[in-house]
Amino acid sequence: MSRHVIGVDLGGTNVRGALFSENLEVRNRLKRPTHREEGGYAVVDRLVALVRALCNEAGTSVSNLAGVGIAVPGPLDVTGGIITSAPNFPDFTNFPLKRLVEETLGIGVHLENDANAAAYGEFRQGSGRDAHSLIFLGLGTGVGGGIVLDGKILRGAHGVGGELGHIILAADGPPCGCGNRGCLEQWASATAVVRMAKEALESGEPSVLAGRESLTAREVFEAAGGSDELACRVVARMAHFLGLGIVSLCHVVDPEVVAIGGGVSESVDLFLPRVRKFVDEQVFPAARGKIKITRAELGDDAGIIGVASLVRNAG
Amino acid sequence: MSRHVIGVDLGGTNVRGALFSENLEVRNRLKRPTHREEGGYAVVDRLVALVRALCNEAGTSVSNLAGVGIAVPGPLDVTGGIITSAPNFPDFTNFPLKRLVEETLGIGVHLENDANAAAYGEFRQGSGRDAHSLIFLGLGTGVGGGIVLDGKILRGAHGVGGELGHIILAADGPPCGCGNRGCLEQWASATAVVRMAKEALESGEPSVLAGRESLTAREVFEAAGGSDELACRVVARMAHFLGLGIVSLCHVVDPEVVAIGGGVSESVDLFLPRVRKFVDEQVFPAARGKIKITRAELGDDAGIIGVASLVRNAG
Repeated sequence: MSRHVIGVDLGGTNVRGALFSENLEVRNRLKRPTHREEGGYAVVDRLVALVRALCNEAGTSVSNLAGVGIAVPGPLDVTGGIITSAPNFPDFTNFPLKRLVEETLGIGVHLENDANAAAYGEFRQGSGRDAHSLIFLGLGTGVGGGIVLDGKILRGAHGVGGELGHIILAADGPPCGCGNRGCLEQWASATAVVRMAKEALESGEPSVLAGRESLTAREVFEAAGGSDELACRVVARMAHFLGLGIVSLCHVVDPEVVAIGGGVSESVDLFLPRVRKFVDEQVFPAARGKIKITRAELGDDAGIIGVASLVRNAG
Repeated sequence: MSRHVIGVDLGGTNVRGALFSENLEVRNRLKRPTHREEGGYAVVDRLVALVRALCNEAGTSVSNLAGVGIAVPGPLDVTGGIITSAPNFPDFTNFPLKRLVEETLGIGVHLENDANAAAYGEFRQGSGRDAHSLIFLGLGTGVGGGIVLDGKILRGAHGVGGELGHIILAADGPPCGCGNRGCLEQWASATAVVRMAKEALESGEPSVLAGRESLTAREVFEAAGGSDELACRVVARMAHFLGLGIVSLCHVVDPEVVAIGGGVSESVDLFLPRVRKFVDEQVFPAARGKIKITRAELGDDAGIIGVASLVRNAG
């Protein structure tokens, strides 16, 4: 019997999936638009079709799979397989995704928060493969987080463990979508980098970024790479708060590895040296110089590798 | 063979110990001054004498004990049994306490950070005895912390896990002894309550606390209990930041129980309702109303019960 596993990442824009071999290597991949505007049931249909297509391509059948893992945004009830609240999927509030996919495909489905899945992928096959504990920070539109301790994802008693974008670093900082102020997400996300750049540009200070109609985090990082003073200051500020967040997290979790992923991690060379220096100076002495802070290694694949590994280890 | 266990709390002022029965009930207790100014070896001698005296009183001998647990301040290397840095015991930096006591007594010794020990005690016999996860916050001169997940203390990869007094809540807040600013300890400790009261008194605002030569946190809480406006504001501020800290911790650990201990917890009625309300409003929706925030139940005994339980569970 085949022990193939499929991992799927249910994103706001695309559904991405891969079929994994016995030893968790990617056999084949597919990517299709999510079209979340069509509603939850339509998305389930598309997800199921993607799983079948992956099996067809690989010359196997769904019934031969060990299971399907799905990485989904937002906090969820892993045991019940229910997305409790997904900011980008309003249709999916209290949506029984696991049951629907299981009933349609007739095999076991494991749901996992996407950042937890990425953390687990990095722990198993990426930057944490030689470690016992890892924190993952996914710096994108928001900041996702995941914690793996002794091989287990720290999901918490109510599924909100590892929501690391929402640790509070500045009680009077910018308001956050979660209802608090000054969360890590308000300093270390792509959105935050753009906001800080726009705030700085308002002073009229000269910068290659001045006068642009729209602005992306990538442009701010490019400008910082080109030594634009304003952009460098914004990136330094982002690095400072990312460092504060990591120090704070080390005083709670004290992991062996901190893996930085997400789109912003493409520009990691511009801020990681500063973050490392800050953490090594500001963390409790016993941990100084001992925490590996690094770019996540698996890129966009961390989530699907993570859920595939979870299915494998459960099977 | 007796399965008695001794738990000892090595405090800055006193060494407190108790001998526990098979089922971890206190048989007898002793308390003696630490006299830390006499140095590490003198303290070891006193600790050893205390253990022997507890055995004598109980009509048993040291060789009949299942082991001795010692709760000590400061981060430590639990495996090696070495206190790495104890702010209140400068003599004890890299001090091999476990080995020295083991060699002298000829039985196994388990060392644990005092706040971790208190967390474990609360988890086993106190406010967390029916839960799977607990965070302990000891609000005293400083703020100690401990995390228990699925019956295990989260010590971290370098022994600085659960140092919850040093999560950062206000990046530009008051400087902290740890080298950062705005740590939880700077808002929720007895020291912080006194500092905030003194700052408020400087404005000349009338208060029953005005003009006192020295001021204690207890006096501030008493004044707040008597509806002194300035004192009430200070306690509200303390409660606000304690709430922020708990929200932040829930987004990392998401425990079933948050137990508030330490001297400040005697005044828990004056701030806990506010803290609970804040957390229930500000934590992620999936956890609202579900996290039990409560006064720790074991008082000063949490640490000795915790280390005794650790010895029992290891034996």
